Amino acid sequence: MNFQQIPQDGIRAASTPPPQLSGILRRIATLGDMLDRAVGEQDHPLRIQIDEIHGPVHATISGRKTTLFGTNSYLGLNFDPRCIAAAHEALDKWGTGSTASRVASGNQQGHVALEKTIADFYGRPDAIVYSTGFMANLGSIGGLASDGDLILYDAYCHASIIDACRASGATFKPFKHNDTADLERALTEATVPASRILVVLEGLYSVWGDIGDVIGLATVAKNHGALVLVDEAHGMGMYGANGRGVTEVQGAEHLVDAIVGTFSKSVGVIGGFCVTFHPALRSLRYLSRAYLYTASLPPAVVASARTAIEIIGSEPDLRADLWRKAERFCTSVEAMGYVLRATPGPVGAIRMRGLIQGLEFWRDLLASGIYVNLLIPPATPNGEVLLRFSVSAAHTDADIDQFLAILREFAPRAISA
Amino acid sequence: MNFQQIPQDGIRAASTPPPQLSGILRRIATLGDMLDRAVGEQDHPLRIQIDEIHGPVHATISGRKTTLFGTNSYLGLNFDPRCIAAAHEALDKWGTGSTASRVASGNQQGHVALEKTIADFYGRPDAIVYSTGFMANLGSIGGLASDGDLILYDAYCHASIIDACRASGATFKPFKHNDTADLERALTEATVPASRILVVLEGLYSVWGDIGDVIGLATVAKNHGALVLVDEAHGMGMYGANGRGVTEVQGAEHLVDAIVGTFSKSVGVIGGFCVTFHPALRSLRYLSRAYLYTASLPPAVVASARTAIEIIGSEPDLRADLWRKAERFCTSVEAMGYVLRATPGPVGAIRMRGLIQGLEFWRDLLASGIYVNLLIPPATPNGEVLLRFSVSAAHTDADIDQFLAILREFAPRAISA
Repeated sequence: MNFQQIPQDGIRAASTPPPQLSGILRRIATLGDMLDRAVGEQDHPLRIQIDEIHGPVHATISGRKTTLFGTNSYLGLNFDPRCIAAAHEALDKWGTGSTASRVASGNQQGHVALEKTIADFYGRPDAIVYSTGFMANLGSIGGLASDGDLILYDAYCHASIIDACRASGATFKPFKHNDTADLERALTEATVPASRILVVLEGLYSVWGDIGDVIGLATVAKNHGALVLVDEAHGMGMYGANGRGVTEVQGAEHLVDAIVGTFSKSVGVIGGFCVTFHPALRSLRYLSRAYLYTASLPPAVVASARTAIEIIGSEPDLRADLWRKAERFCTSVEAMGYVLRATPGPVGAIRMRGLIQGLEFWRDLLASGIYVNLLIPPATPNGEVLLRFSVSAAHTDADIDQFLAILREFAPRAISA
Repeated sequence: MNFQQIPQDGIRAASTPPPQLSGILRRIATLGDMLDRAVGEQDHPLRIQIDEIHGPVHATISGRKTTLFGTNSYLGLNFDPRCIAAAHEALDKWGTGSTASRVASGNQQGHVALEKTIADFYGRPDAIVYSTGFMANLGSIGGLASDGDLILYDAYCHASIIDACRASGATFKPFKHNDTADLERALTEATVPASRILVVLEGLYSVWGDIGDVIGLATVAKNHGALVLVDEAHGMGMYGANGRGVTEVQGAEHLVDAIVGTFSKSVGVIGGFCVTFHPALRSLRYLSRAYLYTASLPPAVVASARTAIEIIGSEPDLRADLWRKAERFCTSVEAMGYVLRATPGPVGAIRMRGLIQGLEFWRDLLASGIYVNLLIPPATPNGEVLLRFSVSAAHTDADIDQFLAILREFAPRAISA
């Protein structure tokens, strides 16, 4: 984390690192101290603890019943009785974990069945399961690109994509967010053959909740002959007639070589995957260090993920319900004068003037029984402080009315001041 | 994976990549094709599937009852009824997953309690839980070291440590495996202050099963004033009066700044941790990208991990039982004329002459109802092909007798030829 990016309005005192420390310890102690001074002790937004949970979007925090508008359980499937039952059954049959990599004794029938489920869901020949979504990016990007290759990635890509680029050994450069002209420029200026270029972007960028221009960017990339990988971590389950994400909605699936996704958002568990749109990508099983050198997912996680993906594929009404709620919420919020950072949808963000206002607003919401995410740099672009919210199919209409009523009450000082 | 390292004795035909491919796709298709040709179709050692499981070390593979001597369930805790019961309870109370990062709504009471359990187990002020062991290295090493720092790592360190070095932005150099003189040289030659150097090593190297010289290397590092991080992924649970690993056995805990570990070996689930031996390391929560930007562990995994660590800390008899079995096994194997690659212990390796002999031996064992790991480069040092075995406290004396009988039968051709 680059703490030079923390908005300085909230820093209450000059940072004074313990004098006996030097080097690495001095640096990290100073940075931690600086952030804690900036944020203060009470209700630290990076340390909020869920004491009890009462469903996908209801919890007890500090003794207070709280409605969660800051989860990634867009469909509420982490509490779906079928997903929980599948986990119970797998636990009894297969134990708590596999204790080995997929290339050793950790390749169980369930992992193979889950990959088939994902491949079928996308209508593609194969899928590879990873142990986290973060590692799906590490493994897929790092497995594809290496020394001498070039990765061009959207400037707003997730940290796991940046870290994957770093670990890959390839040269990597950002292009301007969602900017087809800038990608065109980068491809034209590249000094390696286009077949050695990997273009990486996302379907739904989860900070602002804005949509990637998958069709535009993938078309540019394919005109040059580059490979295209799209991270649909947040878009899967939420977008598309079949829930396959923004790539599906935009009719861009034929232009994409690989889609990476996660089980920790709509699927409700943990883990990730890469759907291989091209037969050569089967070799990722031999090339992905984040696949080879890590323990496979626990059987109960695998069973829940499989059940959840089957539900996502077969119950479009769940997605329709999410959108109905998200649209009602966003329309009302905009009518109050709040400005959303992107086109309305289940994920959105409201920009705060700085850290102090952001903390105050976030804490007032929490005191009113509403949890949202407070995002600060470097997790946000342009040094922005953002209140990020997410609507879930699991929200009741009463939950949404509750949040709207509070936002209406807060609007005069939040918007005018 | 660098396929130039695959032993060439097993390659049956020159590789002929599909002619229409170029660039990245051609390279990865060629490499996958080459490995498959080398290994052949039947019983692929990197693709063995567990069809059914009957406990920590008993499974059905291709319709055959098989005893597993190639897991990392050293204590059998992935089938401990207490660990399974804890997972069931957490599933019912907390659902299948948290769907958010620890710094958002994914910081549940269970995660905090698990960190307290780990900190208490190590007698240290704090611990940080990560979603995999791989990510514990990414997060801890990447959180500590950055641009301008130097990481010196043992040449036999795990892939996750190498990838963490690459992603960190720091300069990184290996020192010769377990070689205090070479570490001394590297520290002396370093051009950055020692307080900006991080020395990384492992307690138990899981390929050969050899022990890190933690006390020797950490002493050298500390004499210079460098930081020391030890990965106890395989050693935890197996070594030490309290099960804290090789660092504990060697009396080196006072020389170590951080210990990284995993839940996917003796603990029997998935996940990882970093125990912070120094107050400044609390800042890792703000600096570890692999902590900030990933979903937290599912509640059921957290509950099982916590139960397993409590068992490891309170039931030393389990560890004694493991060692009794491992010693009996290794003594008998050596008496037959097999040469172990390292000092006998629960993890060991027998070197094969090349890929063909390794595959034959491995397949013969499998046909006899014994599964071990076949390890090939680049997962092994020096281009070695190894049969890697692991003994578990969950093995019965009959399991060990079964494996010994087969090894005795195979010894004449395996050793003399």
